[in-house]
Amino acid sequence: MKARVYVQLKPGVLDPEASVVSKTLGTMGFDTLSKLDMGKFFDIELDVDSTEKAEATLKEMCEKLLSNTVIENYKIEIQS
Amino acid sequence: MKARVYVQLKPGVLDPEASVVSKTLGTMGFDTLSKLDMGKFFDIELDVDSTEKAEATLKEMCEKLLSNTVIENYKIEIQS
Repeated sequence: MKARVYVQLKPGVLDPEASVVSKTLGTMGFDTLSKLDMGKFFDIELDVDSTEKAEATLKEMCEKLLSNTVIENYKIEIQS
Repeated sequence: MKARVYVQLKPGVLDPEASVVSKTLGTMGFDTLSKLDMGKFFDIELDVDSTEKAEATLKEMCEKLLSNTVIENYKIEIQS
């Protein structure tokens, strides 16, 4: 079973890296840029036979390792 | 215009971070994990009036700053 997990800072949490990328694009002449946020994703393959098991496993992975739930949100998308 | 840009190492390029995350999940007992890849994404808003302009701008951003095209692939998804 394949899935993609998105992890992103919660709204309101400062993201200095996104800030720098955004400012740099501005100084490079990209003046139509109005907003930029960053995040990471994980493409994960699991040897499980049901979507339910995959979701439960991925949720546990997110809560325990893949995301810092104090400052980050995660979103799980089962692909096949 | 909103878009999401995905940046990921090309297949075959070593990713030590993904490797560590994968091994750590294994030692934590997630024995159904068969593959894990990582990447990053950018949620970008542009003040442009056409999808074509947005795509051209985003492509230029990717080629010039957001990705290292020697070792990374990028994918642009216009959302609205």
